[in-house]
Amino acid sequence: MSAARSFPRPLEAPPIVRVGMLGCGVVGAATARILQDHAEDIAQRAGAAIELRRVAVRDVTKVRPVALDRSAWTDDPYAVVRDPEIDVVVELIGGVDPARDLLVEAARRGKHVVSANKEVLSSFGREVMSAAEESGVDLLFEASVAGGIPIIRPLKESLAGDRVRRVMGIVNGTTNFVLTRMSETGASFETALAEARRLGYAEADPSADIEGRDAAAKLAILASIAFNARVVIDDVVQEGIAGIRAEDVAAAHDLGYEIKLLAAAERDGEQVSARVQPAMVPQTHPLASVRGVFNAVFVEAEEAGELMFLGRGAGGPATGAAVVGDIVEIARNLASGGRSAGCTCYLDRARIEPRARTRMRFYVVLAVVDRPGVLASVAGVFARHGVSIASVRQEGFGVEARLAIITHVSDEGSHTATFAGLARLDVVKRIESTIRVMGTDEG
Amino acid sequence: MSAARSFPRPLEAPPIVRVGMLGCGVVGAATARILQDHAEDIAQRAGAAIELRRVAVRDVTKVRPVALDRSAWTDDPYAVVRDPEIDVVVELIGGVDPARDLLVEAARRGKHVVSANKEVLSSFGREVMSAAEESGVDLLFEASVAGGIPIIRPLKESLAGDRVRRVMGIVNGTTNFVLTRMSETGASFETALAEARRLGYAEADPSADIEGRDAAAKLAILASIAFNARVVIDDVVQEGIAGIRAEDVAAAHDLGYEIKLLAAAERDGEQVSARVQPAMVPQTHPLASVRGVFNAVFVEAEEAGELMFLGRGAGGPATGAAVVGDIVEIARNLASGGRSAGCTCYLDRARIEPRARTRMRFYVVLAVVDRPGVLASVAGVFARHGVSIASVRQEGFGVEARLAIITHVSDEGSHTATFAGLARLDVVKRIESTIRVMGTDEG
Repeated sequence: MSAARSFPRPLEAPPIVRVGMLGCGVVGAATARILQDHAEDIAQRAGAAIELRRVAVRDVTKVRPVALDRSAWTDDPYAVVRDPEIDVVVELIGGVDPARDLLVEAARRGKHVVSANKEVLSSFGREVMSAAEESGVDLLFEASVAGGIPIIRPLKESLAGDRVRRVMGIVNGTTNFVLTRMSETGASFETALAEARRLGYAEADPSADIEGRDAAAKLAILASIAFNARVVIDDVVQEGIAGIRAEDVAAAHDLGYEIKLLAAAERDGEQVSARVQPAMVPQTHPLASVRGVFNAVFVEAEEAGELMFLGRGAGGPATGAAVVGDIVEIARNLASGGRSAGCTCYLDRARIEPRARTRMRFYVVLAVVDRPGVLASVAGVFARHGVSIASVRQEGFGVEARLAIITHVSDEGSHTATFAGLARLDVVKRIESTIRVMGTDEG
Repeated sequence: MSAARSFPRPLEAPPIVRVGMLGCGVVGAATARILQDHAEDIAQRAGAAIELRRVAVRDVTKVRPVALDRSAWTDDPYAVVRDPEIDVVVELIGGVDPARDLLVEAARRGKHVVSANKEVLSSFGREVMSAAEESGVDLLFEASVAGGIPIIRPLKESLAGDRVRRVMGIVNGTTNFVLTRMSETGASFETALAEARRLGYAEADPSADIEGRDAAAKLAILASIAFNARVVIDDVVQEGIAGIRAEDVAAAHDLGYEIKLLAAAERDGEQVSARVQPAMVPQTHPLASVRGVFNAVFVEAEEAGELMFLGRGAGGPATGAAVVGDIVEIARNLASGGRSAGCTCYLDRARIEPRARTRMRFYVVLAVVDRPGVLASVAGVFARHGVSIASVRQEGFGVEARLAIITHVSDEGSHTATFAGLARLDVVKRIESTIRVMGTDEG
């Protein structure tokens, strides 16, 4: 590759790509370190030297593990975005404000943009994408989903000749750690969460993780790329793991399943459904063996079949490596005169399938009275709503009698009506659990 | 993206990229079908229509499941390569001759090239790459390794800011099917191979698969990209699975391992080692759960940590999807005026570590006489060669007495000397198995 020949602006030899970074927390510090530690390799691969020239942080007096000239630091992110010497803006602030405005302004000023910001992309992706398209700049965001796992690029590029039917991801390390500990040790949700906190795997306020909001933002981005139709976070059904009991995990085990917080999006004809929900996954499914803080994205494509991408979904080095991979791609483009694939949401808003019509299987646990005819009554409710039963287990007797039922595939409306019908039965004392079943041959 | 604006040659609207294909077997037919079935999606993603214009096959009279005008078929591959109307040559003939010459000629004539040819790339990669570089054309080969799994692009692009320490792949579906059946059913190698043949997972002459030659070619390509230093197939140590006994698989199971044919390459400082060998992998390692004809590549990188890419390693649709993904990338480049990352072997020949110095763990099974002092003699031989023992199990008694030993990490030279010393001991009747152990915390 003859980099110098086609490099599009006046330059010294070797060409230099100047980076301005917004934010310097864990990922930012790792990004800066990787750019320095691997500078020689990166220059060779990029066809240009990459220089971190400016960094905007809230507190410029704070000591940071980044070897940069004092003059490089500023507390004004707009000074970076508006600096005519900056070629690439790397946004690692997170959150919507002021990141959204900074991203748009950077693109409008002709800066190429790298972002790890799932909040902005999952709610205001169109706005930021449009600004980049209009200015003819690259907007890359590999680090916004599943940290160090290459997933955006494979979906956008490697599968460009295929049609994705479904993506199912374990994209939140905190909840996967909690569920893994519950599965391995029999711990309760609270105990496992306390352990995650002790080890630094859960934030002080873990609600965005536990309630599925973090995973929902990532799923919106994944689904938008997988289906070429924009899905926003509000399109994603969100259900967290706080209701998962130690008994559910143990019962799932006995039946040959693991419980995972799955971020799953499917395309059914023209319609898309997207949900973050606890789900029982067969132990033979590759997602079942994704343990601890690891993340994975499982893809079902028409031609390529089943694919899985596994790795570290968070942490400075892994996420920083993804950010640097994007910077190198932009540098290569600057050197070769090319451009990365831009916005691939050919449908500006995905058609979201009505929730009641989404098809799924369920695992249902009922506390029942122990007397003749109970199973007939219960089975009758399922039958009335057209939900077919795949397996039933009776556990305990007398006051502790329980029925654990796994259904075949049916639409959610029928399942919901069934649950309501079961709750009205005299013989059903309470519905203890309803957990989706995924990754079986049926769906 | 405004495709028409920057498209580099005179064209009708919309731009059309004209493809010539060499070979139309299982993968070629799938490629042709995918280009037709997904034409609309592909045109949108590529920014250009992709037209399969010519196909060269050995026998033009053979009926094929490809809807193409009669005039498109030829039995002269050079007619395709030299056709001035062809923009992209897709080579799916396989084997070295005449594919090597065709690839070079296509590149020299300014055609962009897509190839699934592991034989040419793993032996004559430099020649073909150089021809492409000199002509300024793209040469893409995602389909040459692990079929439908996106692995070349992630290694080259997503990890461009990282440094890969090791790649470990299950990249041959035939042998993985055989080993999976041996593990699941207790079958012998011969029985499992016969089943693979019956199911069409093994060729009439399966020696290239069984002996590790197919995996070695793929590993040479993977290692070249992972380490930015060219590794050729002759650099790869090859050992097949014909010597794996049902007893070995069962014993591995008891110890918490699966036996896999691993294609593993490591970088140690400036030196690279590459080997295809049966290896015991802990059941908790993600590679252990890769079953049947699935393939997977496990990557250990300094920053991103551990990554795994799993999917279908063969078959028409999966491999065809990878080929079409490459064609789309070239079409995007033609539309945007860019180029894909070219040759990344910055070191034209990797420095191959002397075999005796490569470090590894071993599992060793010895048939021994059952009398006092045997263990002391055996342990003495390990100690003399500086090989440390991690665990010992004695199995059976009397004439059936056996010692199953797992070592710590040591260099292969010391292991080899240990095995020779053991063979000379009176108390050792024979060495029944020596299998490498990989994927543990030690290495």
